[in-house]
Amino acid sequence: MSADKVTIADVARTAGVSKGLVSFALNNRPGVGAETRVRILQVAQDLGWKPSLRARSLSTQRSFALGLVIARNPEVLASDPFFPSFIAGVESILSTERRALVLSVVPDEETELQTYRSLVADGRVDGVFLSDLRHNDARIPLLTELGLPAVTLGRPDGDSPYPAVTVDDTPGVTASVRYLAELGHRRIAHVAGSPNLLHGTRRREAFAAAMAAAGLPEGQTVETDFSVGAGSDATRRLLGQAIRPTAIVYANDPMAIAGLGVAHELGIRIPEDLSITGFDDIDFCRYVFPPLTTVSAAPAVWGRAAATTLLHLMEHGRADDVDLPAARLIIRGSAAPPARH
Amino acid sequence: MSADKVTIADVARTAGVSKGLVSFALNNRPGVGAETRVRILQVAQDLGWKPSLRARSLSTQRSFALGLVIARNPEVLASDPFFPSFIAGVESILSTERRALVLSVVPDEETELQTYRSLVADGRVDGVFLSDLRHNDARIPLLTELGLPAVTLGRPDGDSPYPAVTVDDTPGVTASVRYLAELGHRRIAHVAGSPNLLHGTRRREAFAAAMAAAGLPEGQTVETDFSVGAGSDATRRLLGQAIRPTAIVYANDPMAIAGLGVAHELGIRIPEDLSITGFDDIDFCRYVFPPLTTVSAAPAVWGRAAATTLLHLMEHGRADDVDLPAARLIIRGSAAPPARH
Repeated sequence: MSADKVTIADVARTAGVSKGLVSFALNNRPGVGAETRVRILQVAQDLGWKPSLRARSLSTQRSFALGLVIARNPEVLASDPFFPSFIAGVESILSTERRALVLSVVPDEETELQTYRSLVADGRVDGVFLSDLRHNDARIPLLTELGLPAVTLGRPDGDSPYPAVTVDDTPGVTASVRYLAELGHRRIAHVAGSPNLLHGTRRREAFAAAMAAAGLPEGQTVETDFSVGAGSDATRRLLGQAIRPTAIVYANDPMAIAGLGVAHELGIRIPEDLSITGFDDIDFCRYVFPPLTTVSAAPAVWGRAAATTLLHLMEHGRADDVDLPAARLIIRGSAAPPARH
Repeated sequence: MSADKVTIADVARTAGVSKGLVSFALNNRPGVGAETRVRILQVAQDLGWKPSLRARSLSTQRSFALGLVIARNPEVLASDPFFPSFIAGVESILSTERRALVLSVVPDEETELQTYRSLVADGRVDGVFLSDLRHNDARIPLLTELGLPAVTLGRPDGDSPYPAVTVDDTPGVTASVRYLAELGHRRIAHVAGSPNLLHGTRRREAFAAAMAAAGLPEGQTVETDFSVGAGSDATRRLLGQAIRPTAIVYANDPMAIAGLGVAHELGIRIPEDLSITGFDDIDFCRYVFPPLTTVSAAPAVWGRAAATTLLHLMEHGRADDVDLPAARLIIRGSAAPPARH
């Protein structure tokens, strides 16, 4: 039996239960006993069952609209050019296909889940982009239940029926630490992002692993919510210590640019007295002084690939994971060998 | 006759032509001779005719979706936090009303006009925000023809049946020039935005008028496309001259931040050797060094007001113009008296 053609009926027959029960179990709905649910999921997995996303997309009459729901505090959204760049990439694909993007910005995760339900109930979108993945992300079972096609930006840490479009950020962080270590830095700190977001955690883990690989002592790490203001506060804290780091690896560019401001204010010269690196390569990086050494994740390319993959999924009922070129270090002027003391 | 109740039939009767001809003339469609068209428009204006927007909104069955079409090069969009802030403001209203925002980013004006036609043909939106107004903006007659409710951000320079939600930016530019003049500056330059956009022209005119009002010689003005890169180039040009300005008024913050970078690079101290001011008060302003003296236009407040007005228009068939508090100068650390030479 080809995995493509496995139906709910096949799973029901093999598991010896009704199709309705299989449907409930596969869609994470209540009303199925725990043991039965496990058995059904096991059979479905053994047979290679996949949700039929195509059925849904063919049943709609309007041309597709795609949804992006962003749960971020507005300040972070406004100061982080990642999303506008990503959206510009998505739109470059959609605009040639007469498809529309429905954008929702919501304040918290609860509203976010409700928003997906409303978008589906109101027939507003036929597929969505899942960004800012979290640990055990509650959106994945919800969207599976709603039968909504999706692509995830990056790989989730749990099971997911959805194609993942990924830019691996680990090599970028690793390269930043290695570069600073080769310049002679030993006290390197990390201004990390939110621990609730997978990419915040992943960059932090990559930082710790790269420090160990370079034979350096564990670096100081400060957690933030990724906002410019938090980047400024974290830098002030790090530089206010008696023994301060000679280099700081920031988890995004807006925080690194804020760090540049704090250093200027304190009379700490960059890169002579302090080296810094960012992440994302937003446009500002080339135009601040000194120009920011950072990691390029090409968000517009990511947006184009995610849109192409989602449209393919909706048209053909399946799409492969896409691994885009990994994030890479862009060397500019914000890092140098540490001053001799 | 109350202006509220003037119908196409009233206009037709007074002008002595058929209702069809009036409809064609008012909707800017071909097939009406020039003289007749002028006469019809004159009669409609004399009677105080306004398009009946309510009829359309009541005829739709789905809950409203609102559209925002942005025709900007993706680089400008990604580096200018105005739109993310504005959108965050819009979403703060829509999210509580179970309404959605359909966002389109298009590369040029031709695609933009086509996008409005498609959005209406596909039934995707029931009202739109008109941003980045241009001289004799072709979108206004198009949307009137399409019968689509809209609000304009700012007042257009031609006729418009739509409510305008306005933040007057002139007082902000005027205050910047006056402040610099009072500090003792005489050679003040302006890095202007795009001359195709009303707000680019308006800030430029406000700059020229304020210079004259302060009794200063005409200031040098460099036109840009509002992008960070163009702001950097313009600053390099201004500072590369034998006699350079002692102060620069930028038409947006990203360009001012780029100017800060160029000055740092050239060893020109801000504010000791050069004073600068921005426009918009994006988050970065508080965190660069020195913190940027700029003009606050409160884009999130603007977004909320525009969304509220558009929803009111769609529900009640009419909405008043809204004048938000004018843009005002926020004094931080990037301006000081000019150095004595």
